[in-house]
Parts: sequence; structure tokens; C-alpha cells
Amino acid sequence: MNVVHTNIPRADRAAVERLAASGVATVHEAQGRSGLLAPYMRPIFPGARIGGAAVTVSLAPCDNWMIHVAVEQCREGDILVVAPTSDSDAGYFGELLACSLKARGVRGLVIDAGVRDVRDLTEMGFPVWSKAVSAQGTVKETLGSVNVPLVCAGALVHPGDVVIGDDDGVCIVPRRNAGQVADASAAREAKEAKTRERLKAGELGLDIYQMREKLAARGLVYRQAPQEE
Amino acid sequence: MNVVHTNIPRADRAAVERLAASGVATVHEAQGRSGLLAPYMRPIFPGARIGGAAVTVSLAPCDNWMIHVAVEQCREGDILVVAPTSDSDAGYFGELLACSLKARGVRGLVIDAGVRDVRDLTEMGFPVWSKAVSAQGTVKETLGSVNVPLVCAGALVHPGDVVIGDDDGVCIVPRRNAGQVADASAAREAKEAKTRERLKAGELGLDIYQMREKLAARGLVYRQAPQEE
Amino acid sequence: MNVVHTNIPRADRAAVERLAASGVATVHEAQGRSGLLAPYMRPIFPGARIGGAAVTVSLAPCDNWMIHVAVEQCREGDILVVAPTSDSDAGYFGELLACSLKARGVRGLVIDAGVRDVRDLTEMGFPVWSKAVSAQGTVKETLGSVNVPLVCAGALVHPGDVVIGDDDGVCIVPRRNAGQVADASAAREAKEAKTRERLKAGELGLDIYQMREKLAARGLVYRQAPQEE
Amino acid sequence: MNVVHTNIPRADRAAVERLAASGVATVHEAQGRSGLLAPYMRPIFPGARIGGAAVTVSLAPCDNWMIHVAVEQCREGDILVVAPTSDSDAGYFGELLACSLKARGVRGLVIDAGVRDVRDLTEMGFPVWSKAVSAQGTVKETLGSVNVPLVCAGALVHPGDVVIGDDDGVCIVPRRNAGQVADASAAREAKEAKTRERLKAGELGLDIYQMREKLAARGLVYRQAPQEE
Amino acid sequence: MNVVHTNIPRADRAAVERLAASGVATVHEAQGRSGLLAPYMRPIFPGARIGGAAVTVSLAPCDNWMIHVAVEQCREGDILVVAPTSDSDAGYFGELLACSLKARGVRGLVIDAGVRDVRDLTEMGFPVWSKAVSAQGTVKETLGSVNVPLVCAGALVHPGDVVIGDDDGVCIVPRRNAGQVADASAAREAKEAKTRERLKAGELGLDIYQMREKLAARGLVYRQAPQEE
Amino acid sequence: MNVVHTNIPRADRAAVERLAASGVATVHEAQGRSGLLAPYMRPIFPGARIGGAAVTVSLAPCDNWMIHVAVEQCREGDILVVAPTSDSDAGYFGELLACSLKARGVRGLVIDAGVRDVRDLTEMGFPVWSKAVSAQGTVKETLGSVNVPLVCAGALVHPGDVVIGDDDGVCIVPRRNAGQVADASAAREAKEAKTRERLKAGELGLDIYQMREKLAARGLVYRQAPQEE
Repeated sequence: MNVVHTNIPRADRAAVERLAASGVATVHEAQGRSGLLAPYMRPIFPGARIGGAAVTVSLAPCDNWMIHVAVEQCREGDILVVAPTSDSDAGYFGELLACSLKARGVRGLVIDAGVRDVRDLTEMGFPVWSKAVSAQGTVKETLGSVNVPLVCAGALVHPGDVVIGDDDGVCIVPRRNAGQVADASAAREAKEAKTRERLKAGELGLDIYQMREKLAARGLVYRQAPQEE
Repeated sequence: MNVVHTNIPRADRAAVERLAASGVATVHEAQGRSGLLAPYMRPIFPGARIGGAAVTVSLAPCDNWMIHVAVEQCREGDILVVAPTSDSDAGYFGELLACSLKARGVRGLVIDAGVRDVRDLTEMGFPVWSKAVSAQGTVKETLGSVNVPLVCAGALVHPGDVVIGDDDGVCIVPRRNAGQVADASAAREAKEAKTRERLKAGELGLDIYQMREKLAARGLVYRQAPQEE
Repeated sequence: MNVVHTNIPRADRAAVERLAASGVATVHEAQGRSGLLAPYMRPIFPGARIGGAAVTVSLAPCDNWMIHVAVEQCREGDILVVAPTSDSDAGYFGELLACSLKARGVRGLVIDAGVRDVRDLTEMGFPVWSKAVSAQGTVKETLGSVNVPLVCAGALVHPGDVVIGDDDGVCIVPRRNAGQVADASAAREAKEAKTRERLKAGELGLDIYQMREKLAARGLVYRQAPQEE
Repeated sequence: MNVVHTNIPRADRAAVERLAASGVATVHEAQGRSGLLAPYMRPIFPGARIGGAAVTVSLAPCDNWMIHVAVEQCREGDILVVAPTSDSDAGYFGELLACSLKARGVRGLVIDAGVRDVRDLTEMGFPVWSKAVSAQGTVKETLGSVNVPLVCAGALVHPGDVVIGDDDGVCIVPRRNAGQVADASAAREAKEAKTRERLKAGELGLDIYQMREKLAARGLVYRQAPQEE
Repeated sequence: MNVVHTNIPRADRAAVERLAASGVATVHEAQGRSGLLAPYMRPIFPGARIGGAAVTVSLAPCDNWMIHVAVEQCREGDILVVAPTSDSDAGYFGELLACSLKARGVRGLVIDAGVRDVRDLTEMGFPVWSKAVSAQGTVKETLGSVNVPLVCAGALVHPGDVVIGDDDGVCIVPRRNAGQVADASAAREAKEAKTRERLKAGELGLDIYQMREKLAARGLVYRQAPQEE
Repeated sequence: MNVVHTNIPRADRAAVERLAASGVATVHEAQGRSGLLAPYMRPIFPGARIGGAAVTVSLAPCDNWMIHVAVEQCREGDILVVAPTSDSDAGYFGELLACSLKARGVRGLVIDAGVRDVRDLTEMGFPVWSKAVSAQGTVKETLGSVNVPLVCAGALVHPGDVVIGDDDGVCIVPRRNAGQVADASAAREAKEAKTRERLKAGELGLDIYQMREKLAARGLVYRQAPQEE
């Protein structure tokens, strides 16, 4: 029942890089508003924007043993995605594990639980999205699984899926869709770039998006505010 | 029933600037501890301290259409105040809307819901106080109203009221009270400046505020702690 | 019933400094995973790492009178630990009280409630761990006690105990244990330094901690992932 | 600044009774989805369904003095609506105050804070909607106001407004709208009664509301599920 | 992209009944502690214990259109499982929809959001597990999907899976595992029945489970408590 | 470090019964508003009102092994008080453990975590105050301690202390204070009984408590409400 899947297929590297450059909000829109983790998942420091292939870890609550097992399964360009099987805020991950992951080229961690050594992780520039910060340690007593499908902060993640993280949160793109969603994200960005220039020049969204007719049809009323004072 | 009030009267500009300089905690005290938004309203980046006149937006949950309508009603020096009619953490506002508001001289956003594109908003220096950060988008299907009185994060806001935001949160000053509260805030600051110098010099609040007699009358006992070890 | 204990015994200064240098996560482990405050206690700015002797303040909800009383009991190297007797998010503490504490050499504040003037406190470099940020002020009507044992954010604190705070949270070390826990923390750090070098060099925790046998005995299965596509 | 308004105009009694009979969900819909208190306001026992005229109490956090003042302003058919000026979970109200209110014919309590003596209140059949249950008492030190407009659990309440409470929560109807909203509620109920019979008979909402065309136009696809196994 | 799967295969009816009789805690254990929904999912009234086949509904936040679509896909013995694509506490479901579902033999509702008409639903005896109770209505503007795999309150649900609900919460059993998990649940119950008799007779779990040796080996110390006073 | 204290001294039985009869709100007031557990501790069914002597259990998060150890230390009239060393919502306790405790005359459970088998516990009439209900089980891997002082839901509990629980929550009375607090509770009840009769007869608290002068002195203003309409 407890299994480690080795040598998982990973999303296409070039597509991952393009998705990371687009960022979470754009990618989430571009794939039809799916794959977003719950908004309680926050970065431990601002400004990171990364993408990578998911190595998933399902573990018992308050037990981080399987993270040690998962390190061996990681390659350059991966992101570790960790979810306990029941809700927990303990600190499953700290600076030593980050050193080990960094030595293997792992780009960051997404964990539906707590982390610690936050100052060290910040100095190392190792990005983490977590539900909590807590110095409370965990044990190494119970098996879990590595590289199985799991639910992390409300989203379904398969091993090898694309993980995108930035200040807006974390989004998952299914592995086989990576190229197509990267294309859609790029198209969306191109379109927004044009809109951005018009908005900066003072044009209104009401006009650019041709909303005035629809608003009037729905019955929106404009009325001069009372000018007393 | 859904209305956009145009050309609202706004609080006196000079008073707004003075209030912004005093900051949320001082202004809140100076007007009798009223007008504070709930403490879950947090800035998306630290260090901003702004003031402006409220343009209010009441909108349906998970629908940001009326923000597009509200942009047209904004002038230089305004702050957009947005509240959905039921609780929601979606991301109603992002970088494109901020470009549009910035082009009109709007100073910031206060929203009892979520925002996205947080990294871009930070780089633009566009201050936002929100309940959440979320990449989850919204729709444009249901009408709401612009420049009507509304409740935002537990506080009552009328269009044209003064909005003050800094790292302590957000406070509303009724439009007609702006001058008087700015005076009271300045008086409070002047008094605190004197107290500050005395405290920095090592005097105790117990003496400055003459608390010792009242404490004794209430029965406070001083006792030497046991010195074992 | 309301008492101020004066001249409390304090933890050994040298031990406090050593504990502060080790940080919350290490100290918490080194004393057997006890003494940690709840993870909702967050620093108002990142990067602080302090230690000091606890001056404790038990006060009525929404009443900060006893903080003014407590200031007089503080010495250089102390940390103020404040807990209301019922749950409250108001702002009990601001920049003026921080000026007063700083003039006496106090190193920081730990409060199971709210603080305000966060921008000023950040500029002063006065570290605070709190449950909330709120501009909502308090009154000075009801007595409490200073330097009595109390529960702060779920942890038991005696006056004179060591308080350690950093980005991971806050940990309490009983006064008499300070030296012994500082030794255990240092030993733990020395051991971790060696492990860190091995991990950075690419060795796996699986091998360093000799986990492979135990994992196999528990029945962990390794299986090649399906390679379709 | 602290005032008690006496002899407030109250909503029409007959309209109040009709609104109470319709219940919160229907009334909220019938007045355009406004006036609903936040969903954290829960009844202390199930099954109550009441309506009355609001006597409002704005009080300092952790101070219930003004509830005693408000009792005198209550008449038969009123509902007390209480909101502290900052967030608090203490127990502001218990069985003695309920005895006093009941002697005056008051129908219930709505409080954006905590209550206590819940078993006694249940035995008395005195309905309460609150944010919390807590035995933590309050003080009587600071003035507030009675019968002023206030924000309770996110909704604006004026003295004399209609308050409706049932297992779904609490809704406010502005005093002058009582009759008109009662009419709209009754109309809504009549319409729903017909729909209810059709639904009970097995007709589908898809047909009753004529949704099939709109769904098809939007592109909804029906597809036979795979029948493997 | 928006699809309704019709005629889904459902879990074996006899196995569903056996699982319902065993209850959530037993079934969750019997299938290896998986499939449990988050503990914030609470029943609207106590005492219900049901099982059925999942008809799943993925819908836009604050939009209940697809519930109307889903009704048609329901058969006798089903349970509706509803999850919005972003977090929301609005009231998506009330008494009219329950009448419609009941007419088709549906046994209950599991919804990761809010419901209303709670008093009516209780009187009808229609069980609901939800995250919130709220009178706040929703719209019918945006398509979603029916009978697609989805994440509800943190658990993965496929159409046709077994849903078990009681006062402990909600648990999902994958469709194909229903018989095997029902067997394991029954075995667990039989074993517990024997243990129950021994415990009721006063035997200790320490002896029944033979824990004393293991505790001693781990170093547990028994010590007479000080008898002062 | 992990210890079980046997044969602990317990609070006087007669005093415990008197305290239980007074209830949580009265006892909490009578001992100076101390000893209350956090308001998130809720009964699993309404109407229970119990008192007993605390047998305390400190255990590792997600590990209920020490509850089995604690059963043996319980006597007729005890209440089990359980707190994990870090925050956790798993279900540590169910019907089998309740059978075992009931066989020993234990009156109830107070646990700063989750419980399961809630329907069975309700049918047995075994009262529980908990932070959560969850079917999620725990392991039996790590030692903890029995009958040591601990912090439960923010309150300090020593073994043998009085535990009082009812619909208002849970309150702790230190063992040696039981008689004195029972006397103070009885005196408070006697006083309230007189006040209750006066309030039921229609007298106002304003008069009974002689508040009118103090209110006037503080500046409270009475003003006739505008009678428009």
C-alpha cells in the first residue's frame, strides 16, 4: 500500500519555463480556472516566481519520514509537493532538508502544513509555499508514499505535473497539458499587453471591453450625486 | 435599484493630506475610536501610508464587473473601496485594473475580498489592503452599485469619505468631519511628541500619566519576588 | 489578588545569549519539544532573532493599564510577555510604549493580542511577536498582575524564564534550565553542522540516518512508474 | 457623544409578524439580497423563528454596561441588537439579563460577540443569535450608546428596523420598507408553493424554469459515461 | 469543457447499505484512513447516518445552476456531492431543491459551501453536510460540470463512488472497492464488539492490547504522586 | 522525562458536586474570572453539566497511546483532560475508550483536539468537550505523560484539579481552592436568586444596581428620537 514510484515522467522542461514566466494568475486563467491551491498557501518570502515538475509526498500527520525518502527521487528542476493525510500545522521541513534538495537542483517546496528555519530558508533563497510556520518538529515512525496522486490544499496533483508558484499562490498544470497551456498563457499575455498600453494611456475598460451597452440593457442607472454639503 | 452616483462631493483635499500624515492609529483615536476596518484587512506590501476620498463599489460575490464601471467615476486623489455583498476570497482585482486606476490618479484600493498579481502591484507601488490574495478570477454578469453607502470589513463607508491606510490597517473618516478630525489628530500628535521625549529620556508613564495613586486606590500590591536560587 | 512582583530572579545572561543565537527551532528541539507558543504568533517584521528574560503581564481584555505598570519592572535584557485573560485582538501596544521600553534596554515584546504603530516599530527595530495588528485602542480601568506565571498563546511562562523569538515563532525555556538547554542546543548545532556539509555534498539523509533498512522492514515498496508517453 | 435615544419609531407590528412568518431566506431574497448578517451568527438552540423591532446597543469591547441601559428602552415586541466597537468573544449576556428582557416582552437577542448561561437561556426559550458562547464576563466601566445606527456582523442596523431571525441566520429590513418587503415575501412564498408542488410531483427545475435552451446555447455537453466494469 | 456525464456506473447497492451501517469512523479505518472530508463539514442536524452513490457537481462560485442540471442525473439511492471551484460560504441549496431531490429518491447532500432553509430541511429529514449555513443566494449564469471527478473538502470524489455520512463527518469509498471495504468494516466491527465487552467488564486496554511491555521498553516511568495535604 | 503519576490527590468530592451544580459561568466569576478554557471548546451534545477531578494526559500530536495508559489511573468521579503538544484536529477518542472510562466511573472528557463516534457517545450520554469532531484516527508510537501539569485550550490544569463543564464551556478550579470557590459560588447564586426575582417582577437593573448616578456622572445623554414619519 505504501509505495515509491521511481523515474516518473515529467512535464516538458521548456513548457515549464514558459509557464513559470507567465505566473500563477495568468496560467490559472489560461487553463480554464482550474488547478489553483487554496489561498491559505502563502510564500515564506515575497518575490519568488518558480516552476517545476511535481515530486509528490503523501505522509502521515506529524511525520516527515517520507520527505527523506522523496529527496532521492528528485532531479534538477523538480518541486516537492507535500500533503499530510490529515490537517496539521507542525513544522515538517527545515534548513537541512532544503540543503539536501538544493544539492539535487530542486527549485522549491509546496507543503499543505508548516515549515521552520524560515530565516535560513530566506537567506538561502529556497522558496516555500506553506500553510503555516511552526518550530514544532515531527517524528519518523509511519510510512507514506512518494509520487502518488494526492490532494494538496484542495487541488489534485499527479507526479510530474507542472507546479507554478509566485506571490499569488500555487497552480498545478497537468503534465500532458503543459505545452498547450503555455501557448494559451502566452496568447493571453500578448493580448493583455495591448490592453495594458491602452489603459495606461487613459482609455477605459468600459470602452475597450464594450461594456456600456450590456450595462444599460441590464438596467444600470447613472444619477448625479446630491451636491449639498 | 442598481445605480452609479456621479460627481460625488469629496472630502477637503488639504484635510485628507493631513489625516494621511497622521496615520491610522492616531486618526482612529482622534475621532473617538470609530471607523476602523476589521484587522483581517492587511496591506499587500509594508510601508504604504495613504489617504484619499472613497469611491465605493458594492458588487455581487465573485463578480468584478462594477469595478470596471467605477474606474470612470474616479479622480486624482481617490481611493477605491470595494465590498462584495457576501463573503468571498476570490481575486477581484489585478494589475490591469491597477494600471487603469493609476492612469486616473487613484491612490490605492481597499477591498473586503481577494486580489491577485501581487508581485506586479508591489513593483508598481500601488497600495492595496485586502482580506486575501488569490489568483481565482471572477465573472462580469451581475450589476451592483457605485458610490452608494456600504459596509466594508465591518465599517460604514459613504462615498467621498476619507480613507486612511497604513501598516496598522484602514480607517474611515466621515467626509464632513475631515477638517475637525485632522485638527484633533494634529493636537494628539503634538501632545504625544512631548510624551515621547520624556519616555525616551527614561521617565515612566506611571509618573507622566500620574497613575500611581489610582493604582494604589484600586488595591494594587507590590511584593518582592522570592529570591531562591 | 492583583500583585506586582518586583526584583524577580532572571535567567543567566550568558545562557540567554547562547540560546538566542541557536534560535527557536533548535532550542525547542533541544529541550524536548516543549515551550513553544502557538504558530499564530507572528513577527511584525522579518529577520529579528532575540532572547531575554520574561517580565510577564496578565491583564484584563481590552485594557493595557498593567503594561504601564510593568515598564518600571523591566531591566536591560528583558522581554515583555503579555497575555489578556480572554481572547482579544485589540491594539494594546504602540510606539510610545516601545520608546519607554527601549529606554530601559528591553529587547522586544511577545503579546497574545494585537499591536499598532507597526510602521514606527519596524523603523525603530523593536521586535514584536503578536496575534494581530490593530489600531483599536484599549482602556486603563482594571487591575491585572505583573510577574506572575501565566499562559501566553498556549505556553506556560514564569517571570524570569528565557524567551527566544525569531521568524519561526517564540519559545520559552524555564529559567533554571537555561544553561543546560543552551548546552544541548549547541551540541545539536554542532551535530547538524556536520550533517549539513554531507547533505550539501550530495549525500542522502536515507544513508546518513541509515533509514533504508527500517523502511524496508516496514514494507515500503519501490516501483518503476509507468512510462507511457 | 454617548447618547440614548428614547421613544424610537418602530416598524409596523403587523408587517413584522408577516416577515417573521416568511423567514430569513425568503425575506433576504424579497428585498434584493441585502441586510443579511454574517453567517458566523448562529442560534444557541435550533428551531426559533422570530421577528421584532431593533433596539440597538453600541458598546465598548468587554463592557456590557450599556445593555443594562438599553433594557429600559425596550418594549413588547422588540429585539435587542448588540455590537461591540471592536471584535470580542467574551460573554456579554446571560440569564439574568434575559429575565429582565423577558419581563418587558422582548423577543430575543442578536449579538456580534459571546453569550453565557446557554442552558438556562434554552430552558427559558429565549432565542439568541451570537458569534460565540463564552463564560468570560465583562465590566461596566465605559459608556456607549443606545438606539444609534450601527454595524452588526457586517450589516447596517437602524433603531426600529425589523430584525428577523431563524435557523438560517439574521436579516435586517429597514423600518420604512417593512410593509413592502412583507408583500414581496408573501408573493415569493405563493410562487414557491406552486413550484414546490410541481417538484414534489417529480417535475424537473430544468423544465419548470425552462433552462434547457440556455444551457445548450452556452455549450453544455451531455455525454454517456464510460460503462466499463 | 463543461460536460454532464449521464448514466454513470454506481457502486453496488448492497455494499453501500453495509457501509452506511458501519459508519464513517469504521469505514475510514477499514480502507486505510483515506477518503475523509475535512472536519469543517458538519451535519445540519444530529443523528443522520446515510450512504449512497455520488452524483458530483462542479460549479462556479456563487452559482448553483448546475445543481438544477444535476437533479435530472440522480436516481434512487444517490447522494449529491457539490463543490464550487473557489472557496465560498453562500447558500447554494434550500428546501425547493431538496423537495426535487427527495422526489427522485436522493438520500442527502454533501456540499463544500453553504445551505439555507435549515429548519425546513430538518423537518423534512433531508440530511446535509455543509461548510456553512447562509441565507445568501446564488446566481445561474455560468456553466459547470456534472459527474466529473472533483475535490470536495479536501477529498477526491469520482461519480458513482460511495458516500457515507454521519455525525462524525463524511467519507468516500471508491466505487470498485465498495464490497471489499464493506467486508473489512464488518470484520473490524466484529473485532471491536469483542473488545467492547471486555472493556465494559472492566478490563484495561493496556492488557487487552498488550501494551505494557512496549511502554516499559520505551522508558515510561510510573511514580507515586506527592501526597502533601 | 515521560512519567505517569499514580494515586494523585484529588479535590474534595463534596466541593466538586457543589461546583458542578453551580455551573461554569458562576464558578468562573466566583474564582475571579480565571481558569476558563478557550471558547472553541464545545460540547458534542447540549445539556450536560458535570464536575470531577482532573486526570491529565499530555500526548504527542496524532498519537493517542497515553489515553490508554491514563484509563488505569482513573477512578470514579474523575474527568479526563487531554492536550496534544501541538495543534491537531484528529480524532483521538471514540466509543471504545468511552466504554472503558465509563466502566471505571469516569464522568467525561475534555480534549483540546478532535473526537469521533459522536453519535455513539451521545447515545451513551458520555459528555465530551472538544475542539473538533473528526473520524481521522491516530497512532500509538510515542510516549507522553499522565498526571503532569499541562495547558489545555489556554488554561493551566494540575492533576486533581476540579473540572466543571456545561453548555457554556469548561472551567478549572485549583484543587486546594475547591471548597472556598464552592462557597463563593453558592453565595453568588443566592445573591443572584434575589436579583432574579426583582428582574422578573419588572424592576430594572439600572435601579437595582444603582447605575443612574454613575451614568450621569460619566456624561450619558438621553434624547428623544426624531419622530418623523
